[in-house]
This record gives sequence, C-alpha cells and structure tokens, in this order.
Amino acid sequence: MLSSEFDSLMMQRCLQLAGRALGRTSPNPLVGAVVVKDGEIVGEGFHPRAGEPHAEVFALQAAGEKARGATIYVSLEPCNHYGRTPPCSEGLVKAGVSKVVVGMVDPNPLVAGGGIARLRAAGIEVVVGVEEDACRQLNEGFIHRILHKRPLGILKYAMTLDGKIATSSGHSAWITNSEARNEVHQLRAACDAVIVGGNTVRQDNPYLTTHQQEGYNPLRVVMSRSLSLPENAHLWEVAAAPTVVLTEVGSSLDFQKLLLNKGVEVVEFPLLTPDHVMAYLYERGFCAVLWECGGTLAAKAIAQKAVQKILAFIAPKIIGGSYAPTPVGDLGFTSMTEALSLENVSWRVVGSDCLVEGYLPQSQ
Amino acid sequence: MLSSEFDSLMMQRCLQLAGRALGRTSPNPLVGAVVVKDGEIVGEGFHPRAGEPHAEVFALQAAGEKARGATIYVSLEPCNHYGRTPPCSEGLVKAGVSKVVVGMVDPNPLVAGGGIARLRAAGIEVVVGVEEDACRQLNEGFIHRILHKRPLGILKYAMTLDGKIATSSGHSAWITNSEARNEVHQLRAACDAVIVGGNTVRQDNPYLTTHQQEGYNPLRVVMSRSLSLPENAHLWEVAAAPTVVLTEVGSSLDFQKLLLNKGVEVVEFPLLTPDHVMAYLYERGFCAVLWECGGTLAAKAIAQKAVQKILAFIAPKIIGGSYAPTPVGDLGFTSMTEALSLENVSWRVVGSDCLVEGYLPQSQ
Repeated sequence: MLSSEFDSLMMQRCLQLAGRALGRTSPNPLVGAVVVKDGEIVGEGFHPRAGEPHAEVFALQAAGEKARGATIYVSLEPCNHYGRTPPCSEGLVKAGVSKVVVGMVDPNPLVAGGGIARLRAAGIEVVVGVEEDACRQLNEGFIHRILHKRPLGILKYAMTLDGKIATSSGHSAWITNSEARNEVHQLRAACDAVIVGGNTVRQDNPYLTTHQQEGYNPLRVVMSRSLSLPENAHLWEVAAAPTVVLTEVGSSLDFQKLLLNKGVEVVEFPLLTPDHVMAYLYERGFCAVLWECGGTLAAKAIAQKAVQKILAFIAPKIIGGSYAPTPVGDLGFTSMTEALSLENVSWRVVGSDCLVEGYLPQSQ
Repeated sequence: MLSSEFDSLMMQRCLQLAGRALGRTSPNPLVGAVVVKDGEIVGEGFHPRAGEPHAEVFALQAAGEKARGATIYVSLEPCNHYGRTPPCSEGLVKAGVSKVVVGMVDPNPLVAGGGIARLRAAGIEVVVGVEEDACRQLNEGFIHRILHKRPLGILKYAMTLDGKIATSSGHSAWITNSEARNEVHQLRAACDAVIVGGNTVRQDNPYLTTHQQEGYNPLRVVMSRSLSLPENAHLWEVAAAPTVVLTEVGSSLDFQKLLLNKGVEVVEFPLLTPDHVMAYLYERGFCAVLWECGGTLAAKAIAQKAVQKILAFIAPKIIGGSYAPTPVGDLGFTSMTEALSLENVSWRVVGSDCLVEGYLPQSQ
C-alpha cells in the first residue's frame, strides 16, 4: 500500500471515530484521532462533548508508552491554547510522537497553523491536508460558526414531483417513504436545533425528534410572534426532547405561562426574525440548525441569509393543487434569471425518493 | 461470445437502425432488421415511414442471395397480413432464411403471434423475446396506440428545486440549462405532436421546434376555447413547423380566418377537452404526444387520462413565490395519500439538472 493510501485510510478512521459524537460536541468540532506504530493502530480517541478532553488526549491515553516515536492522525489541527483543557500540541510533544498527520488546519484564521507550528518547532514531522474535503464536510457547521459567528442554516423539505409540500388543504403525511424519513431522523441527530414556525405546529403537529430509542434529539425551536398555538402539541411533550418557543416581547403572557408549566422554555425577542434567531442560537453554542419550516418562513430565512444549505427530498408522485403550498415563499424575484443557483449540487436516490443537496451562493 | 450475447448485440443494432426513423413512422412502429450469415452482418434495414417497405424488406434486399440460410434479427414480429405492403412473413419464407430472432411479438392481441406461427409453419426456427424490454421501450407510443386507441400522452415540464415552472410574474426563460433543453429538443423529435394551451402561447411565445437544421418537427397543437391569442406568435410561423389550433365550434371566426391566412390549421371541436384532443390525434395516426402545457391544462389532461408518462426536469435553483405557477393544477386531492405515485421511476442527471421519468399508475 502507498503511504498516501495508508494515510487516507487512517484519516477516514479518524472521521469515523469523530462521527460517534455527531450532534453532541457543539460549540466544539467533531474530532477523531488514531495513533499508529509500526503500521498498526495502538490507540484511538474522539472528542465526546464540550468540556471533555480532546480526541488526541484519548488516543494518546489508549496508546500509552507506545505513543513514543509513533505517528498520530488527527482530523483537525491540534489546538495550541489553554481552554477548558491544556493545549493538545503540548500533549503531543510530551508524549514523544515523531509525526503528526493533520486532516485540516484550524478554521479560525486567528489561530490557524499555530498548533502545527508548535509541533514543528519541537522537531515533529507534520503532514497537513489528508482527506481534507471529508474533514471539512464533517465539520461544515463548526467551520461556518467560526467564520460567520452564526450556526450553519440547513433548509430541509420534502416535496412531490409537482413541487408541493402539502395538499391544498394542508395535509402532508407522508410525502416521502420510510427510507427518506429515516434519513431525516439521522440528519436531525447531526444538528443542534430544528426550527419550525407556528403554521407547521398548527398544521402538522410534528414531533421533530430522531425517533431513536437512545438517540440524540436536537433542541426543538418554534418561532411564533402571535403565540396562537395549540394548547396541546407533541412539541410541548418535553420528556421526548427539549423545546423552546421564541416569541416577541409581551406576546400572550397566559400562553407563555402555559408553556412554562409544561416545561417548554420561552424566549422573548424585541423583533423575531430568522437572523436574530440564528444570532441567539449562535450564543447558545450551536453549530448546525435545521430549518424544517413551511414556505413563508423558509423564504424569510433565505432572504436573511439564515440558510446556507438546501436538502430537498423529492418524491415521485403527483398531488396537484394550484394553490397547494410549495417549499419557498416570496423572495421578490420576477425574472427566472434572478433564481438562486445552488452550488456543489448532488442528487442521490434514497429508497424511491431523491435527495438533492446543494449550497446557496455565498454572494447572495 | 455466447450466442445469447451475440443475439443481444444484433438486436441492439436493430434498435439503433429503427431509431433512425424516430418520429417519422406513425401510425407505424419503429422497426429495424439485420441479416447475419456466418457471424457477419450481410444486410440491414429499417422502416423509414408509413407507406414505405418494412425493415425486413430493406434488410433482405441488402443481403441479396446471402439471405438464403441466414439468420434475420428484427425488433418486432414480422407482419402476416396484406396492408400497404405484402406480409413480411412471406418475404422471409421466400428469401429462404433459416432462423428469425424477434425482439417482441406484435402488441396487437388480435394478430400477435401470427407472423411467428407462419414462419414456424414454414420450418423456420424462431426465437422470441431478445432485448424485449428495450424493444417495448422504443415503441411504447405505438404499443399504447394499439392497445388503447389513443396516442401515448407524455407530460413534460421543467421546474425549479422549489417546485415552480415560472416566477410569480410568469417569467420562465430559462429554468434548465442547455443540456436539458437539448434533451427536450430530441424528445420533441421523437413525438408526433406537442400540445400547449393558450396561456403558454400568451406567456412564453414558444417555438416548440426541435431547433435542428435538418431535424424532424412534430405538429404543434394549441388548445384554446376562446382564441384570445396574440395575432403574432412564433407558433403561427408555419415555415418552421406545422401548427394546428384546436378550438370550439364557432369561436372567434375572425381569428380563425387570421390563422388560416397564416397557414395555421384550425379545427373546431363541439367540446374541447384533453380526451377529445387525444382521440382526434389518434385519428390523425399519432403514436406519441408531448404535453408541454402549464399546470391548469396538465391537471385536466391527467384527470382525463390523456397523460401516461411524466418527464420532469428539475433545476437546482430556488426562485421562490407563494403563488408562482407549479407544474400541475388541481386534481381534487385533499389527502397526501391520494397522490398519484409514479411507477418505473428513473432519476438521471443531465448537465446540472435532473430528469425524472415515470409512469402514472394504470389503474388511476
């Protein structure tokens, strides 16, 4: 095997380990590390959640004395600063590793390269950029958070082949088949929050959980200025998963009390907008947020750049309806040339449906 | 090479030859034939258009004396009746072929198997069902015509990833990229007619041609009860391709005269409906008709079973619009479970867009 192939394999293993903490590490990134000596893995680790040690620490612990003279693979540049834990660069120097293979440099331009420089200064060989695209992909939410001081916004919807997200009367269960819905549950597990508007609560009464016995559930977020919401809704059942309702200052205090009594968190905003909500969720330490709202809120979120990525499930069925709801409401465009063309688009068949992934143009 | 592999290759060659007459043979099928002697092709032929000889005749002519003792491959069961030409089964017997390999039997249940029986009665070995799916696919319009006494109706549309076929103000040029539009031109060349409603003429002023210098153009059909159509439209330029306007008895005789003066054919119906139009186009000898209309007419065509197949181009772009037009208007469905689930669905990336193909359930 070529050494570059071996490096790729080891880095893929790091990513696999990192993924075990999917959805649980925010505001920190997902990181995995593998210690290799004489061509064999002698230690593995991943960062399980904020406040706990970094991946390198676990991997070095597992390797023990074998770390001396070994190569360590780590999906993200080792940190070089004292945070809740001592810098990993120091730990690697102390452990006596002879080589460090790094997936990607730190996305924070202010500290990027610092950890690598520290290692090189200590005489350790450092290789950078192995499986870099995959490393960036795994942490796209974290990277966006660091660069833009906002969580990554992902708009997810399911529509029929004739472009509807519900019938004219609002019925939408189910557009996609169970394979696609399972994929949505996995997607939720990788996100820190799921956002809907009041319309979705009233129309669909959704759970917005991952439907996994032991799975991780993101925070369920409802945006509602009016608070004209049902007194009983699956989202108010906080034993399943936490819910926060975001509203405007002074809105229906009675209903706020009702929600609080059920264990639902309520937060009042001076002005409830998608951007203010994303700023708030950034402050809560979130990396990735899933918009699972209807077309009206989706359009506002896109217009305010609270959405960077689109995940569209398309079911090969025709429901019809001249005024049936569609995934995105008014963006103010009158000419087709104004349409937002997605970038890095992929089409993937999931069961009988198709999942389209793409990114909104950054300049929009 | 296995003999079954060789048979498949020869049948694929038949289909390739048959396809040279794409869009020109209605009401007849597309048929190709290949004569093989000692493992080599010694004659080829295809049916060029109704009234001209069948594929077998051309292939036997090309093979000449070499046809004696040869194997002939033909994509459709040789005919066994006197029509505009003598029966091909007789021709094959006379030519002295020793074996006939047939792609598919005649789709007409009243005559199916007759040609094969005649050949076997003459002591000729007959193999049936080589590359049968591909043979059926190539002639799906012809088969539908024979079985249902209607042309196959294909609804084609292009929509954005958020389900719109135009902006809120009606602008639609262009949703898809040039690769997808080229594919539409090829699709038109394989059809006998293209149908739009008055709205599409007013909004888009389309050409509905194949945009090929030497290409075949289908008949352009406009359905308009009111005849409130523009006096000048690309569709009235019949030097490019023929156009027929279908309307109701007595509708705007002045405008009818204007159209006739431009060389546009006008046909009055007692009641102008998609089904009556398909019955009329059946009488004109058509096998495949492309609906390129807007959502209102598309919904009527689907409801009246004038559409069997859907071809949806999806462009990965977001245009928005709460009331922007979508591909299919009201079908009267209120629950998502009523949606028409397509069968035999395929998803294919065409340039940056995706082409979804599928068939409406036959029982609908």
